[in-house]
Amino acid sequence: MADPWQSAYDFAVQVARAAGAVIRKAGEDEIKVQTKSCAVDLVTQTDERVEKIIIGSLKEQFGDGSHCFIGEESVSNGQPCNLTDKPTWIIDPVDGTTNFVHGFPFVAVSIAFAVNKELEFGVVYSCLEDKMYKARKGMGAFCDDEQIQVSDVKDINKSIIISEHGTDRSIEKVTKIFSTMQKILRIPVHGLRGSGTAATNMCLVASGASEAFFEIGIHCWDIAAGVVIVREAGGIILDVDGGPFDLMSRRMMSANNDIIAKRIIKEIEIFEVLRDDAPVPSK
Amino acid sequence: MADPWQSAYDFAVQVARAAGAVIRKAGEDEIKVQTKSCAVDLVTQTDERVEKIIIGSLKEQFGDGSHCFIGEESVSNGQPCNLTDKPTWIIDPVDGTTNFVHGFPFVAVSIAFAVNKELEFGVVYSCLEDKMYKARKGMGAFCDDEQIQVSDVKDINKSIIISEHGTDRSIEKVTKIFSTMQKILRIPVHGLRGSGTAATNMCLVASGASEAFFEIGIHCWDIAAGVVIVREAGGIILDVDGGPFDLMSRRMMSANNDIIAKRIIKEIEIFEVLRDDAPVPSK
Repeated sequence: MADPWQSAYDFAVQVARAAGAVIRKAGEDEIKVQTKSCAVDLVTQTDERVEKIIIGSLKEQFGDGSHCFIGEESVSNGQPCNLTDKPTWIIDPVDGTTNFVHGFPFVAVSIAFAVNKELEFGVVYSCLEDKMYKARKGMGAFCDDEQIQVSDVKDINKSIIISEHGTDRSIEKVTKIFSTMQKILRIPVHGLRGSGTAATNMCLVASGASEAFFEIGIHCWDIAAGVVIVREAGGIILDVDGGPFDLMSRRMMSANNDIIAKRIIKEIEIFEVLRDDAPVPSK
Repeated sequence: MADPWQSAYDFAVQVARAAGAVIRKAGEDEIKVQTKSCAVDLVTQTDERVEKIIIGSLKEQFGDGSHCFIGEESVSNGQPCNLTDKPTWIIDPVDGTTNFVHGFPFVAVSIAFAVNKELEFGVVYSCLEDKMYKARKGMGAFCDDEQIQVSDVKDINKSIIISEHGTDRSIEKVTKIFSTMQKILRIPVHGLRGSGTAATNMCLVASGASEAFFEIGIHCWDIAAGVVIVREAGGIILDVDGGPFDLMSRRMMSANNDIIAKRIIKEIEIFEVLRDDAPVPSK
C-alpha cells in the first residue's frame, strides 16, 4: 500500500476538531479544578473527558488490538508509557490546562501517530484560536490548509525565543530555568515569549512567529505532534544538548535552523528529569 | 451636555478598527525594519504610517486646536509628551512592534482620551486576533460588545501573573526583572505569561484570563487605553510601589483586586526610569 496512513491522518484531524469543540464548550461552563501532582499542575474533568472521547473515537476505527495508545490522562491513571514498534497514538487531550482553567487564549488538542518508533503525522488544534495545524511526514506542514514554514532568520539577535517555566517549583530547577532565560535575553534576542502550551509553542516556531522553542520537563504527548509539524515546516528537532532528539527523554529543542538551535543550546543549563518510559516504581 | 464625549468614543473605535486593518495588510507584505533606540526596540514604516492615519483622522474631526495629541512616533520624532488639562488623545499605533515584525499573534492599536488629566475612554484593538476591547468611564468594559470583567480569584496561589522583559538589556534592569519574576513564580502562582504587548496584557487582565500585569518602563501610550478597560472591568490600577498610579511615571500595576496587587507588589524590585514627561535635554 503506497500510503497506508492517510485515512488515519484525516481521521485524526476530525477527532481533534471535535475534541476542541468540547473544550471550548466546557470553557464556557463552570470549570471544576482538581489538584494533580501539585497546585500548579491542574487537571480538570475536561481533560479526562476529552481524552476518553479521543481514544474512544480512535479505538472505534483502529481498535482491533494492533494499535497502542499513550494519553496523558491514561498514563496519570497508571497506564504504561512505552513506545514500541506498533502503530501508536500519542495524545494530549488538553495541552495548556492552566491556560484553559484561566481562559488564557492558548489551549491545544495534540494527536500524533508513530510507527516503528517513527512519527508519521501530527495534528495540533489550537481550539480557542480555532487554528488547525497538521503535518504528515514528507508532505509539508499546514495551518488551516495553508502551507507554513519556519522563519529564515539566521541572526540570533533578530530572534524571538520561546520557553516555559514548567510546573516544577523546586529551587534548583527554577533557578536554572531563570538563569538560562536571562542569558538568552542578554545575547541579546528580540524577545522571550511563552504561550503556556508546548504544542502551540511548536506551532509558533513552525509558522515562523518564533525562531526556537525548547523545554526540559515536557512529556511525549505535549510535543509528539509538534515535532512532525516543525520538521515538515523546515525546522529541526534536537536534544537540549545538541544531540539527537529522543521523544521519551522529556528534553526538546525545536528551531528554524541549526545556527539558531546551536546558539541557544550554548546557554541552556540542563537539569535531570525522569524519562517518560522510566519503570514505574512497584508499590 | 450630558455626554460630551460619546461621539469621540465611537469614532475612536472606528479609527482603531481601520488602523488594525492597515496593520494586518502590512503584515502580509514585506516588513522593512529600522533600528530605533536599540536592536530590540524595533520601529517599522508601518508604525509611522499608522500613527499618521490615526492622528490624521482624529484631527479631521477634532482638529480645531482644542485637542492635543500624544503619539508614540510623534514623541520619538521630538514632539512634546506633556499631559495638560486639555482634551488629549494618547495613541500607540502598533503596540507590540516586535511581535508584528515576527508575526507573533498579539499586536494592538491603542487609543485613549483624557480630559483634565483624567482618562475618559480607551480602545484597544488586538488586530491579529480581531478582538475589539473598549471602555468608557462609568460605563463598563467590553470585548466585541460583550461585557467583560476581571477574575474573582483572591488566592495568589491560583493566579496567572503577566509581566514583560522590556527592551532594555542593561544588566541591572534585566537582573531585577528576572529576580522579581522568579520570586513571584515561587510564591507559587499558577504561571507567568507575557504576550509581548502591554495593551493586550491589560485586556487579558480585564477579561479575567490573568489576575495581574505589571511593568516598569512602559510608556503612557502603551497603557492609557488599557487603564480605562481594566478599571471598567472591575480591576484596579496602582503604582508598582502600591501608591497612586501616575500615567506619566512609566510604572504600572494592574490587577483584578487589591489582595492580588499587594501580594505581587511585595516581590517587585523597582528600578529607575525617566518619566515620559521629563524635560527633553537641550541640544
